Amino acid sequence: MRRWRFSKGHGTQNDFVVLLDRENVLDPSDEDVRWLCDRRAGIGGDGLLRAVMARHVPEWDGDPGLWFMDYRNADGSVAQMCGNGVRVFVRYLLDQGLATGPTVDVATRAGLKPATALPDGRVRVGMGRVAVAPGTVRVTTAGGSAYDATSVDVGNPHAVSVVTGVGSLDLTREPRWEPAEAFGEGVNLEFVEPLGERHVAMRVHERGVGETRSCGTGTVAAAAAARALGVGGASGGDGVWTVDVPGGRVEVELVGDEAHLTGPAVLVAHGEVTLPPR
Amino acid sequence: MRRWRFSKGHGTQNDFVVLLDRENVLDPSDEDVRWLCDRRAGIGGDGLLRAVMARHVPEWDGDPGLWFMDYRNADGSVAQMCGNGVRVFVRYLLDQGLATGPTVDVATRAGLKPATALPDGRVRVGMGRVAVAPGTVRVTTAGGSAYDATSVDVGNPHAVSVVTGVGSLDLTREPRWEPAEAFGEGVNLEFVEPLGERHVAMRVHERGVGETRSCGTGTVAAAAAARALGVGGASGGDGVWTVDVPGGRVEVELVGDEAHLTGPAVLVAHGEVTLPPR
Repeated sequence: MRRWRFSKGHGTQNDFVVLLDRENVLDPSDEDVRWLCDRRAGIGGDGLLRAVMARHVPEWDGDPGLWFMDYRNADGSVAQMCGNGVRVFVRYLLDQGLATGPTVDVATRAGLKPATALPDGRVRVGMGRVAVAPGTVRVTTAGGSAYDATSVDVGNPHAVSVVTGVGSLDLTREPRWEPAEAFGEGVNLEFVEPLGERHVAMRVHERGVGETRSCGTGTVAAAAAARALGVGGASGGDGVWTVDVPGGRVEVELVGDEAHLTGPAVLVAHGEVTLPPR
Repeated sequence: MRRWRFSKGHGTQNDFVVLLDRENVLDPSDEDVRWLCDRRAGIGGDGLLRAVMARHVPEWDGDPGLWFMDYRNADGSVAQMCGNGVRVFVRYLLDQGLATGPTVDVATRAGLKPATALPDGRVRVGMGRVAVAPGTVRVTTAGGSAYDATSVDVGNPHAVSVVTGVGSLDLTREPRWEPAEAFGEGVNLEFVEPLGERHVAMRVHERGVGETRSCGTGTVAAAAAARALGVGGASGGDGVWTVDVPGGRVEVELVGDEAHLTGPAVLVAHGEVTLPPR
């Protein structure tokens, strides 16, 4: 009988099961991850965040005294990073007294991510470099609406379309894009609508997942594309963009090609979970 | 700051948040219930099971020494009973040392429900009377398949269709029924396919909810309709029917017009939840 302490939390309703595994001994299998993230048979979450002391992580060659965030998707697969997840991860470390704030550097598979817990309860995370690519792709939703989309690289690939009536788009199925070979390994598709100065509403279809309530790197891509296109009244330059997603609101600060993402991070519950026998 | 102890469990993947509220003081509002059952912002479940000592429940006029199951749907509304929920409720009472088994009588809004914890981990519940109505209604799925359905009353209304290829039915939208006035307040729609002697596969579209992984009263209705129609090789009479639902397997024993439902009941996690401010 395996009993593990867990927490559950979310950032703009992108939600996670959090495990403390200081010495990297729990060894959750893909099947364990799928079960923990199963919303009916297990706890439920979009992914698993496992907190491991970096010195016990062979693939980490940076500061051994940091906490390493092992992020796993709900299907058990390993992921590099998760913009909403790292906020929840930092909130967890501070809540559990595992780190002292307000600044916490997090070790991830995508490198070191500096984070700061703000007095208002939000967490600000350095997301690194964001790059808007020249040219456009053509994106067509299941409902038949077609848009020119801007390609944005935030470590993972995005294509951002500017639309009107974002709330009524049909994202129940994955939109198509042309040329198909532009994103041979799939792409995250954001749809943004200007709401005011440096303020957009966004919906997102995540590759391999479907529409989600929020996507951290997607909000960064949306802000970068909006800046590049002059959407939302701001004519390029540095500044803070407000991005409203179905699960809440985040802010993206763009300074040159560096992005910081600020948003809520909420711990909902703490407890003990009994895993099914292997 | 409200912090409540909770458990999470499921019966054939019909899942519940369980609260202990011995003296009936927690007073969860509809909004609290919706939040607790929210799969992303809260804990997540199809409903809430609140354990209250029956003596503290004004509407209960039976044995004051029983545990009363306050069942609430995920939308906050009050429900009479829940066949899968009562199994999880009994498992919870036994696990927490709040009742001694193997037999546990549960007070519900639909009256007293006798339950027994079996040595194999399953729980058997007396579901009361099941009545098959004469005549049929015509049910048409979103995919356009049409069936004659048998009306069954298990305290709540059901219409059971016998089909082939149950796995490929389109239940993404609510099937229609004719005459519409047969079920003016809606109906739970079961689709069963014979698998062997007294053995059927079932899918269900629950009124006001959509397709679910399991529905306890639905499995009772399915067994009763199958018996009445002679489906599955058994020509009426008493016996045990095996019903496979997407979330697992249950057994329905029919003796005259009385039904007992036996199935798994699993507690997954225990913990403490922090509710948002009122």
